[in-house]
Amino acid sequence: MSNYLSETDAGQRIMRRCNELGSISVPGAGVTRLYLSQQHRSAAETIAGWMRDAGMDARIDEAGNVVGRYHSVSGGGPYLVTGSHMDSVVHAGRYDGPLGVLTSLDCVAVLHGRGRRLPFGVEVVAFADEEGTRFRTTLAGSRAITGQFGDDLLDATDADGHSVREAMVAFGLDPGAVGNAAHRPDEVIGYVELHIEQGPVLQAANLPVGVVTAISGQTRAVMRLNGAANHAGTVPMGMRKDPLLAASEIALAVERIASAYPDTVGTVGFIKAEPGLINVIPGEVSLTVDLRSQVDGIRHAAFDELGIAAGNIAARRGVEINIDTILDLHSCPCAPDFVDRIATAVEAAGVRPLRLPSGAGHDGMAMSTMTGIGMIFVRCKDGISHSPEESVTAEDVATGAATLLHFIENFQGRP
Amino acid sequence: MSNYLSETDAGQRIMRRCNELGSISVPGAGVTRLYLSQQHRSAAETIAGWMRDAGMDARIDEAGNVVGRYHSVSGGGPYLVTGSHMDSVVHAGRYDGPLGVLTSLDCVAVLHGRGRRLPFGVEVVAFADEEGTRFRTTLAGSRAITGQFGDDLLDATDADGHSVREAMVAFGLDPGAVGNAAHRPDEVIGYVELHIEQGPVLQAANLPVGVVTAISGQTRAVMRLNGAANHAGTVPMGMRKDPLLAASEIALAVERIASAYPDTVGTVGFIKAEPGLINVIPGEVSLTVDLRSQVDGIRHAAFDELGIAAGNIAARRGVEINIDTILDLHSCPCAPDFVDRIATAVEAAGVRPLRLPSGAGHDGMAMSTMTGIGMIFVRCKDGISHSPEESVTAEDVATGAATLLHFIENFQGRP
Repeated sequence: MSNYLSETDAGQRIMRRCNELGSISVPGAGVTRLYLSQQHRSAAETIAGWMRDAGMDARIDEAGNVVGRYHSVSGGGPYLVTGSHMDSVVHAGRYDGPLGVLTSLDCVAVLHGRGRRLPFGVEVVAFADEEGTRFRTTLAGSRAITGQFGDDLLDATDADGHSVREAMVAFGLDPGAVGNAAHRPDEVIGYVELHIEQGPVLQAANLPVGVVTAISGQTRAVMRLNGAANHAGTVPMGMRKDPLLAASEIALAVERIASAYPDTVGTVGFIKAEPGLINVIPGEVSLTVDLRSQVDGIRHAAFDELGIAAGNIAARRGVEINIDTILDLHSCPCAPDFVDRIATAVEAAGVRPLRLPSGAGHDGMAMSTMTGIGMIFVRCKDGISHSPEESVTAEDVATGAATLLHFIENFQGRP
Repeated sequence: MSNYLSETDAGQRIMRRCNELGSISVPGAGVTRLYLSQQHRSAAETIAGWMRDAGMDARIDEAGNVVGRYHSVSGGGPYLVTGSHMDSVVHAGRYDGPLGVLTSLDCVAVLHGRGRRLPFGVEVVAFADEEGTRFRTTLAGSRAITGQFGDDLLDATDADGHSVREAMVAFGLDPGAVGNAAHRPDEVIGYVELHIEQGPVLQAANLPVGVVTAISGQTRAVMRLNGAANHAGTVPMGMRKDPLLAASEIALAVERIASAYPDTVGTVGFIKAEPGLINVIPGEVSLTVDLRSQVDGIRHAAFDELGIAAGNIAARRGVEINIDTILDLHSCPCAPDFVDRIATAVEAAGVRPLRLPSGAGHDGMAMSTMTGIGMIFVRCKDGISHSPEESVTAEDVATGAATLLHFIENFQGRP
């Protein structure tokens, strides 16, 4: 422990551990560490060891999360929970998830090094499954801790047909006991997570850290446009019913409408024309829409406006349109006093506190069903994540660690 | 022969033979009759038999075309060539190609029935390979007759790896003798083809037939747009380099520019976004452009205008663009006196002579290298072709046959 703190720069300490944890991976480019895998087991044991070095009681819980508790002055809870996830996508970077786990752990190590106990306990969690890469089960770890790990999750299967239930047994867990991972609400007084931004806003603003206001809600929809396929050479322009041109107008309407609302983004990520031949006017085009906003009312208004615009575009072009909404996930606002406290902590680190929404999902979405949440973003290079190219600087990490520690140390005043 | 003409309506006669020829097909939906197949052999022998019944010398030539000659009053040539192709795409209709062959044959049968010989001979050709479905060798039949059947064509292979050369031997042809299919230019005094329109112009104008002015030239290009792939939730709208939005603007520019020039069409038939996921801003988009006009200068001006517009769109969006022109095929104008003579023949059939370009390619493109060409279009339902749904009426076919016969009978006055 004293060995760990002998490196006096928190950024350097945390970066070194990010590298060490990043080496626990399936061989190949970047980091691949999936839920209930050997790499998960190895990472969990490594983290639990580091927790114990930092003066915490640590255990791997019934869902595979690592839960470390740094008790209060009175020797127990309730606990301010902090952490992030330890699983990854395939060919991930080293920071999406681990940075939050290891920065939280560093804060506790510092408190422990000073021999300081707070009026409340600090619980560091390394969530077992946020990405859902292996079983398509996002937030399985935080859902276990908030008592939402149902049979549907146990029955989910991976690409090889193995269920979560089977994989738990192979990992050494009892699927029937997963309910025991749930925390009692009165044990938990808040949840705060530090995470890389996964976007370019902080870099553009030249700021090392930022204050998250909410995890945006999402609408996802598939649009199918049916026109009239025909020979590309023989149908005059005015006599066409071309669904690809309707789709093009709709993609631009997504951009126009999302741009018109504050803190709202809209994306067409997929488009396909049938039959998709160079010399044939397409007969059918499908495209996807992903719309996000921190304010559900804005998101719904924008999606309604898009639906009207798309309907008008299709009607004008003689194209049939079908819109299938496949996801409508509400926004998850951060607790206003957490936002203010994090802003104060950012200012204490000498940084202008920029407030921004998180367009990506996080474990806080599950944690918010149990307690107030807050998030600190750390700048990442060019907004790149889910890639071996993911990059942060030790200096920014040190600023993030100072912010998180300030937030934790000053949390006792919460009403 | 007298049996054939006992049905007094030319439309009915020709429709019955279209049905009969349409039954010579690979089993499955519609007509599938590929170059150098068993079905090709069977169709060629059937057509040759019908030619002989109509008083013609008929042979299957060295490329697999059926060539029937109805000699002049002096017992030989030169010949006015007429006909169309007997091959098909996969799951084709019964009229694209065969209608022109069988209408030409009907005209000769009528002349023969009347015992009438003209000052010139009439040669009916059923071209062996216009579509190029099997070997991707368009116009192989007419290229053989015009002496353009080179070794590259012989070496072309089908999906099973069989070359044209091998398939010719299996068919009973000598690949080394294909040059003998070429006609001497002084044997040929013109080429006229009747074909379904494969477009909706005649239907919209409520006309059974039309006068083709030119076979449009074509430019085909592939555009590749490279932006910055990123998380759909985390990048504000104003900070994106989204190649799909650039592609959408380009598709609409294709429409706008093609619409601004006379008798010009432009189509985006294919588009693909990478990685193509609902929650990822695409990093790369490719799309195709097909641009056609009967006037090469217009086509080149429109394509240049499109290139400038696309470059500006890409630059404004911070997206890299690469434009690869994969085809630049010049326009093939019909001989002005053929156009006028066909217009006269259409008027003689009591129909307003609408002049229109052919946006689709035809054997006339090869034939025009040897002689003047003309084309008569017959209305087809909803402009549909390359489909079992392809449909014409016997009444329209009768009008087409009357037009072609009028053209042939009055051709002797050509200077």
